[in-house]
Amino acid sequence: MSRATRLRLERAFIDGVVRDDVTVEIADGRFSAVGVDPAADAERVEGLAVPGFANCHSHVFHRALRGRTQTGGGTFWTWREQMYAVAQRLDPDTLHALATATFREMLAAGYTSVGEFHYLHHAPSGARYTEANVMGTALLTAAAEVGIRITLLDTCYLAAGIGRDPEGVQRRFSDGDAQTWAERVAELDALDGRARIGAAIHSVRAVPREQLSIVVAAARNRPLHVHLSEQVAENEQCLAAHGMTPTALLHDAGALTPLTSAVHATHLTETDIALLGSSGTHACFCPTTERDLGDGVGPSRALHAAGSSLTLGSDSHAVIDPFEEMRAVELDERLVSMTRGHWSATELLDAGGRIGQASLGYADAGRIAVGQRADLVVLDLGSPRTAGTGAGAETAVFAASAADVREVWADGVRHDAGVLREQAGLELARVIGGLWG
Amino acid sequence: MSRATRLRLERAFIDGVVRDDVTVEIADGRFSAVGVDPAADAERVEGLAVPGFANCHSHVFHRALRGRTQTGGGTFWTWREQMYAVAQRLDPDTLHALATATFREMLAAGYTSVGEFHYLHHAPSGARYTEANVMGTALLTAAAEVGIRITLLDTCYLAAGIGRDPEGVQRRFSDGDAQTWAERVAELDALDGRARIGAAIHSVRAVPREQLSIVVAAARNRPLHVHLSEQVAENEQCLAAHGMTPTALLHDAGALTPLTSAVHATHLTETDIALLGSSGTHACFCPTTERDLGDGVGPSRALHAAGSSLTLGSDSHAVIDPFEEMRAVELDERLVSMTRGHWSATELLDAGGRIGQASLGYADAGRIAVGQRADLVVLDLGSPRTAGTGAGAETAVFAASAADVREVWADGVRHDAGVLREQAGLELARVIGGLWG
Repeated sequence: MSRATRLRLERAFIDGVVRDDVTVEIADGRFSAVGVDPAADAERVEGLAVPGFANCHSHVFHRALRGRTQTGGGTFWTWREQMYAVAQRLDPDTLHALATATFREMLAAGYTSVGEFHYLHHAPSGARYTEANVMGTALLTAAAEVGIRITLLDTCYLAAGIGRDPEGVQRRFSDGDAQTWAERVAELDALDGRARIGAAIHSVRAVPREQLSIVVAAARNRPLHVHLSEQVAENEQCLAAHGMTPTALLHDAGALTPLTSAVHATHLTETDIALLGSSGTHACFCPTTERDLGDGVGPSRALHAAGSSLTLGSDSHAVIDPFEEMRAVELDERLVSMTRGHWSATELLDAGGRIGQASLGYADAGRIAVGQRADLVVLDLGSPRTAGTGAGAETAVFAASAADVREVWADGVRHDAGVLREQAGLELARVIGGLWG
Repeated sequence: MSRATRLRLERAFIDGVVRDDVTVEIADGRFSAVGVDPAADAERVEGLAVPGFANCHSHVFHRALRGRTQTGGGTFWTWREQMYAVAQRLDPDTLHALATATFREMLAAGYTSVGEFHYLHHAPSGARYTEANVMGTALLTAAAEVGIRITLLDTCYLAAGIGRDPEGVQRRFSDGDAQTWAERVAELDALDGRARIGAAIHSVRAVPREQLSIVVAAARNRPLHVHLSEQVAENEQCLAAHGMTPTALLHDAGALTPLTSAVHATHLTETDIALLGSSGTHACFCPTTERDLGDGVGPSRALHAAGSSLTLGSDSHAVIDPFEEMRAVELDERLVSMTRGHWSATELLDAGGRIGQASLGYADAGRIAVGQRADLVVLDLGSPRTAGTGAGAETAVFAASAADVREVWADGVRHDAGVLREQAGLELARVIGGLWG
C-alpha cells in the first residue's frame, strides 16, 4: 500500500452539501478517510472541490468537427454528412492521436470517466483489420495514457436504415450481423480496473429488430447504451415499419433495464416515458450537442419523475464542459417552458457525477466518501466567472466553466488542469490540422 | 500626436473576411493604417484578432445576483424580487465599486463599449441625492477608470405598472414625472469622448402613455433604449389598458427610430415586427439572460428581414461573454426551430461588434479600418476550446469563450486580459461579498 496523501479542501461538495475545511486522505487511488478538521496536518487546497464528472456519451472523433460545421444551413442529417467525411479518414493511429488529445481536453474539464460510443470498427472499405479490435484498442490505450477511466461502448451498427444495407462509410461500422459483432466484442480486453467493456445498439435504425435480442444477450451485466428518438424522423420510420415507437421496440426486445442508458430521449410519448421510467433505464442527455444540432429539448423532468435517472454527455464535443452541460438541462427547459426551477444545482451535480459514474459501471466513483475512487475537481472561486457567486453548488453549476478547473484528481492521481489544457491544445491542433490537411 | 504603434496580427477579421498577416498602425487611439504586409517591421501578435464588442444592454448591479438566484422555482417575476433586494442596498460608493469590477470583467471578455441601462437614480427612500446625478456619475467614473466606453442610458421609470405608483425600491427609480426626469438628465456630463449620454424608457409598464413623448423629445439625436415585450404579461397588460401592443404604443409615441434599440423584443406580433423593421429600430437581444430567466426565444431572423438590425447585451450578467451571446442567438433558434443555419458567424460578429457599437453612438468603432477607434480583441487559437477548429469566424463565434481572450485594445489602449481577469475577480469578490454580508 502506498503512503497516504492528506488534503485539506477549502470547500467541498459532499453528498448534497457544501462544507468548509474538509480533510480527505487518499491511499491506493481511493478515499481512505473523509472528515471536517480545520486543524489537520494536510496540504491546503484552495477552491471548491466537487466529485469527478462522467462523460456518459462521447463520439471522440467528432472533436475534429468543432467550428467546421457551422457554415450554411441544414439539419441533423446534413450535419451527419460532414461527420461521415471525417469518419472515413481515420485509421488506428489517427484515431489514437485524436482520442488522446480529446480525452485530455475532457480530463482538464473535470471528466474522470468517459463512455465512448464506438462504431468505427473496420477499415474504410468495410474489411476487418488484421487485429479486429485495433480501433477499440486505440481508444482504450488513449484513455489509459491520459488517465481517464473509460467504458468502451462497442456499438452494433448493421443497417443504414430500417431494411437498408450500410452505405459508404457506414461499411466501416458494420460487422454484418449481431452474432459476428458479439463474437468480436467478446475478444475485447479492458486491460485494467480503469476500463470497462460495455455495448451499444446504435439505434433502432441501425440494428434490425430481429437481431436486437442478440445484442441484449451479449450485453448482459454490462452497460448498454442506445441512441433513442433524437430525431422525429426516426420515430416516424420506426412507427411505419413496426407499428411501434423506438422505445416500445427496445422494450419488446428486453433492452430496457437499469444497466441501459437511453441517449437523447428527446421526442417521446407518455407511454415511452413510462416504459423508460418503470424499467429504470437511464436517460442520458447531451444538452450542448442537442442545442447545436437543433434536436429539441427532451422531457428531462418527466423522465426523472417516472424513474429514469438523468446522466449527461458531451456527445459531438461542440463543447467539452461539464458545467455547461449541467446548467443547460435547466436553462433549455426554461427556454421552452418559460418557468424556472426544474432542476436544482445539487441534482445536476449528482446527474453529472455520481449517477453518471454508476451508469458507466463505476458505482464506486462520484462521491467524496471513504472507499470511493479518489476523484476531485477543484474550481477556482476567484475567477471573473465565479467570484462573488456564493461558492455553493450553484456556483459550480450556474457560474463556473471548464476554464475554472484548477486541478483534477482521477483515481488518486493528481493533474494540474492548466498543464492538461496546454498539452491538449497542442495535441488537438496537430492531429486535427493533419486530418483536414 | 503620439508616436504610432505598429502591430502585425497573425490573423484578423476585417469586414467579413479573416486574413493572415494583417499590419495595423495605431495613433491617437485610432487605426491610422491597415494592410497586409508579412514583412512589416511591427510587433507580432499571435492569435485571431476581431473588433471590440459592444455590450448594448447592461444592468451592472445585477452582477451581484449571479449564482444567488438559482435556488427554488419561480418565474421572471419572482427573480425580480431578488433583484430588487440588491437594488435597495446600493449607494454611490458601492455602485461605483460594483461597476468598476463588472466593467473590468466586461473589458477582459472583449467588450470595449457598454450601454448601461441605469435607473438607480435616487436614495432608497426615493429622495434625491444632494447631487442629483451622483449614481449616474458613479457609473461614468467607473467606466472611465476601467477604460471601457460607456453610453449611459438614463432611464425614465415612473410607475410600478400601468396606472400604479412606484412601490418599495421602485421609489429609487422614479423622478416623479418625465419632465423632471428630462431636466435631471440634461445636467449629466459625459466627461469625455469615451462616454455618451443616452436615454431609456424602462418599459410601457413604467412610463405612462401620455409621458412617452416627453422622453422621446428629450432623447432626440441620442440613443434611446426600451425594454420591449420580454414577458407575455407585459403585452397582456398593455393590450388591456390601451388596446394595442407595446410596440404599437411606442410607435404611436414616435419612439421607434434608427436611434432606438428595442431590448429583448421576444413576444411580438407580425405587425410589431413590421413596425420595428420599417422604423429601423435596433433589436437588442440578450440571449444568455433570456435563457436564464426563461423569457422565450425572440424572432431574431424575422426582425432582421424586416429591417431591424441585431445587437447584443449581457443584461443581467448571469454570463459575461460576448462569444456565448453571439452563438446563443443561433443555437437557441435551432432549439425551437429544429433547423440549423439561421445566422452566420460573420453576421453574428457584426451584430456583436460593428452594429452594436453604432447603436450606442460609436459609429466610428467596430471595424478594423483606417479612422476607426483602435479596438481589438485577440483570441488564443491554441486553447482546448479553439485548437483545431479552423481559426475562422466560426472559431470566434462557435468555439471560443471569454477565457480565450489574450489581450484587448480599447481606443488604442492595450490591456492584458489575464491581468484584467485577475483584478476583476478580486474586486468582484470584495464588493459582492460586502453586499451580501
